[in-house]
Amino acid sequence: MAWVSWLPSMLLLFPIFASTAVFSLPAFFPRAPLQSLTQRAQTLKDPKLPFTTHFFPQQLDHFTFQPKAYKVFSQKYLMNSTYWDQGPNHTAPIFVYTGNEGNIEWFAENTGFMLDIAPKFHALLVFIEHRFYGESMPFGKESYESAETLGYLTSTQALADYAVLIRSLKQNLSAEASPVVVFGGSYGGMLAAWFRLKYPHIAIGALASSAPILEFDTITPWSSFYDAVSEDYKDESMNCFEVIKESWNELMAVAARKGGMLELSKTFRACKSLQSVYSVHDWLWTAFVYTAMVDYPTAADFLMPLPAYPIKEMCRIIDGFPQGESKLTKVFSAANLYYNYSGNKSCFDIENGTDPHGLHGWDWQACTEMVMPMTCSNESMFPSSSYDYNEFGDECMAKYGVRPRPHWITTEYGGNRIDAVLKRFGSNIIFSNGMRDPWSRGGVLRNISSSIIALVTEKGAHHLDLRFATKDDPKWLLEQRKQEIDIIQSWID
Amino acid sequence: MAWVSWLPSMLLLFPIFASTAVFSLPAFFPRAPLQSLTQRAQTLKDPKLPFTTHFFPQQLDHFTFQPKAYKVFSQKYLMNSTYWDQGPNHTAPIFVYTGNEGNIEWFAENTGFMLDIAPKFHALLVFIEHRFYGESMPFGKESYESAETLGYLTSTQALADYAVLIRSLKQNLSAEASPVVVFGGSYGGMLAAWFRLKYPHIAIGALASSAPILEFDTITPWSSFYDAVSEDYKDESMNCFEVIKESWNELMAVAARKGGMLELSKTFRACKSLQSVYSVHDWLWTAFVYTAMVDYPTAADFLMPLPAYPIKEMCRIIDGFPQGESKLTKVFSAANLYYNYSGNKSCFDIENGTDPHGLHGWDWQACTEMVMPMTCSNESMFPSSSYDYNEFGDECMAKYGVRPRPHWITTEYGGNRIDAVLKRFGSNIIFSNGMRDPWSRGGVLRNISSSIIALVTEKGAHHLDLRFATKDDPKWLLEQRKQEIDIIQSWID
Repeated sequence: MAWVSWLPSMLLLFPIFASTAVFSLPAFFPRAPLQSLTQRAQTLKDPKLPFTTHFFPQQLDHFTFQPKAYKVFSQKYLMNSTYWDQGPNHTAPIFVYTGNEGNIEWFAENTGFMLDIAPKFHALLVFIEHRFYGESMPFGKESYESAETLGYLTSTQALADYAVLIRSLKQNLSAEASPVVVFGGSYGGMLAAWFRLKYPHIAIGALASSAPILEFDTITPWSSFYDAVSEDYKDESMNCFEVIKESWNELMAVAARKGGMLELSKTFRACKSLQSVYSVHDWLWTAFVYTAMVDYPTAADFLMPLPAYPIKEMCRIIDGFPQGESKLTKVFSAANLYYNYSGNKSCFDIENGTDPHGLHGWDWQACTEMVMPMTCSNESMFPSSSYDYNEFGDECMAKYGVRPRPHWITTEYGGNRIDAVLKRFGSNIIFSNGMRDPWSRGGVLRNISSSIIALVTEKGAHHLDLRFATKDDPKWLLEQRKQEIDIIQSWID
Repeated sequence: MAWVSWLPSMLLLFPIFASTAVFSLPAFFPRAPLQSLTQRAQTLKDPKLPFTTHFFPQQLDHFTFQPKAYKVFSQKYLMNSTYWDQGPNHTAPIFVYTGNEGNIEWFAENTGFMLDIAPKFHALLVFIEHRFYGESMPFGKESYESAETLGYLTSTQALADYAVLIRSLKQNLSAEASPVVVFGGSYGGMLAAWFRLKYPHIAIGALASSAPILEFDTITPWSSFYDAVSEDYKDESMNCFEVIKESWNELMAVAARKGGMLELSKTFRACKSLQSVYSVHDWLWTAFVYTAMVDYPTAADFLMPLPAYPIKEMCRIIDGFPQGESKLTKVFSAANLYYNYSGNKSCFDIENGTDPHGLHGWDWQACTEMVMPMTCSNESMFPSSSYDYNEFGDECMAKYGVRPRPHWITTEYGGNRIDAVLKRFGSNIIFSNGMRDPWSRGGVLRNISSSIIALVTEKGAHHLDLRFATKDDPKWLLEQRKQEIDIIQSWID
C-alpha cells in the first residue's frame, strides 16, 4: 500500500488545506516516510523507458561562498540521444525537462510529449532531477533531517542547478551551438518559465504547462482553486456537486455519534479501525481534488490509474444511487474509483502513511517559499474556510523551526501586473493550461506579447499536453500540441 | 594618510595584477584594515549632502532557509524626497542607486547626476548601501572575520537585498504605482544592469555606467584592460608611454644594487625607509591605472583630487624633464600628481596600509565570483604577464580558504553572445561608457536592441556621466546626459 500512502504528498502541488487548524493532521504534514520515495525510484512502472541514467557533481549552495557551500552532491539526470542528429553545424536542439518535486523517472514517464517530438527536431532529451527528490539527495538519508539540511531545498538553488548542469553538459558534448528549450509541468512548469526569465542566455524558450505562477500573494483570488474543483463537478451534475458538498456534515455527524467511528470504518472499508474522522475527510478530499486535476479525456495513470473523464465517471456513480442512499456511501463509491479503479483492493489503509515523523519535500517548500494561500468559499463543495498567514507560519515554525517568507516568490520572480511587466520584457514562453485543472486559475491565461503565449484548452487538465500521444486523443489536444510544436520550431529557427 | 592607504582597495574594480606570483604583496591582498572603511563613513567630504539616513532590517540569506538564514542585519540607505512630487496619480518615479563596494555616501557624493535630474522628474532618490560595505555589516566588526561570514558577500544576495528593500519601501510609502529606475557606476553599474535583467518586475529600466559585465571568461581579450590604459598614455605622448614602460626595469635595477632601497626611498620621498621594491611598483601602478580610469575632462575628486585631463598633466610632467633625467624621477613626479595634487604632502607612506591581516570586501569578491582574468601584453606599458586560473585559485584558497568559481558570473548573468541573447529578450538598459576608461573594454559598446542602448563617448572616463554637472562640462558630455534623460523619460512615459 506504499503506493497509495505516499501519493498525496508526491503530488506536484499538493493543495494545502485551507483551515488547517481544523484538522488533526493538516495535509501539508508529511504523510510518507522518506523511504517510500527512494523505493519509488526503484520501482519504475516502465523500466524500459529509453533513457540512460547519469549523475552530475552539483554544488550545494550557489549563492553563498562559505566553505560548506562548496559541498558537492550527485544530481541525477536522464538522457536520450537516439534522435539527436547534430547535423553539419551541430545545431540540433536540446530539450530539457526541469524536474519538479518527485523522482525524475516519474516525470519522464508522464512527459511523453518530449519523446514524441524528439525525432522531428532531432533533439537530445535531458530530464534533470530536482535537488532533494528521488536520488538527488544532497545529504543522503539525512537530507530531510532538519532545517539545516532542508534549507538548501529552494527553487532558486534548483534553477541554478539546471543552469550549471546544462552549461557543463553542452561543453562536454561540444554542443555549445545547440539551442536549449526547457519543458516542465506544474511546479516543473513554473521552474521552466522562471528559468527562461532568469537564464535567457541558457534557454531560448520554455514550454510551461499548468504552471500556476500567479497563485501567490493576492494575484489570484484565494478561493479560486477550490471553486474550480467544485465547478468541475457541478458542470458534470448538480446532484453530484450537492451530494459531495453535503457529505462533509454527514461525515462529522456520523463520527460524533456513538459507534460512529466503527460505522465509518465499515462504510469506508478501512483495513484497520479508524481513529480520526479527519483521515476520512482527507482521504475523500484528496480523491475529489486530484481527480479534478487529472480529469483527462483519455484513460491515464499519472496519480492513479483512472478511466477517461474520471469526474464524469465519479458523478455517474454518485448519481446512480437511489436518492435515499446515504451520502457517505455515495462519496465512498466515488472515491473508490480514484483509489481502486483496478478493483483489486478489498480494503483501504486510510490512516496508513500519515507518519507524523515522515519528512517530505514539498511540505518544506510550501512552508518556506511556496506559500499559496487558499480558502474554500461558501459556493464551493468543500466546508468553507479562511486562511491566515500567521497561523500558517506558526504551524511551519512548529514543524520545521522556520517561518515562511510569503512574499518572497513574487519578489524574486514577479507576478503582480505580469502583463505590463512582461509585455516589453522577455520572450519565448508558452503557458499552456487546461481549464478542468484547478491549477489553471493561477496560470497565465492570456497572451502577454507576441512571443509570450497562453494556450488554453477548455477540456484540458493538469499538463495534459505533456503526456504521450494516444490513439484516443481528442482533436483539440492534437491541435494544441501542433501549436506548441510550431512555436518551438519558430524559436529554433 | 588613511585616505591614501585605503584608496586602492576601495576602488570599485581594483585591477588585479596579472602575475601576482611575482609580487610579494599581490594587489588583491588587502591593503587596509577594516577600520579605515568605517572611519571613512564618518569623514564625509560633504556632510551637507541632502540625504537622510535610514536602516532597513535585511535578511542575511535570501536563497536558503536554514534558521541562520533568517538573521537580520541593518542595511543602510540614503533618501532625498525634496523633489518627490507624486502628483494626483502617485506615479512620480523612484531613482535607486544600486550601491557598490564602498560606503554609500561615497557613491552619493559621486553620482550627482541623480540629484541634478531629480527636480525634472519629481523623483525620489534612494541610495542603497551594498552589504558588507560601509555600515551595512551583517556581522558587525566580525563581518570580515572568515569565509563563514564573508560567504554572504555575493552579488546575487546584494541584488535580492535591493529587490526586498525597494519593494518594502514602495509599500511603506504607498508608492506602488511609482516606476523604479536603477542607476549604478562600475560594479554598481553591473548590479544595475543585472537588476533590470533579473528583477524587471521591480525596475522598469537601468542606467549602467561603466559596467564591465563582459570582463569575464574569455568574452573580452584578457590584455585589453592594460592595453587600454597604455593607449591612454600613448595617445597623449609616445615619450610619456615609453618612459613609463621602461621605468619598471630601472626600478628593479636600482632596487637590486647596493644601497638601492635607500636610493628608492629618497627618490620616492618615502616617509619610512622602503623594505620592498614591490610596494613602489604597486604605488606607481596604482597611480597610472587609476588616473586612466578618472581621466575626466574637468577637475574632480573621485579617487583623489585631480585636475582636468590628468593624464595630459602627468605626461606634461614626464615630457618636461630633460631627456637625460632618470626615468624613476620622471615617473615619481607623475605619480606625485596623483597622490599629491594639493601639494601639501612632504613624504609618502608607500608601505603603509599594506596590512597583511587587513580584510577587504572586493578582494573577497574577486576571489569568489568576480574573476576577471587580466594580462599585460608586450604592447602595454606594464611588464608583460600571464594569467593562470589555478595559480589564482591557490592564492584565494590560501587567503580565504575557498576557491573562486570563475565561470559562475557568466552562468548566472550571461555575457557570452550577449547581442544574440538580449536582442529578443529584455529591454530598457543604457550601457554608457567612456573610452578613456580601461573598464570600457569590458562594457557593452554597441546597441543590442531598440531599448538596450550603448552610449559611448570617446573622451569620457569612469562613470563620468553620473557625476554632478559642472560649468566646465564639454559639449559631448552635456549631449550624452541629455540622451540619458530622454531615454529615461521614455521609459517612464
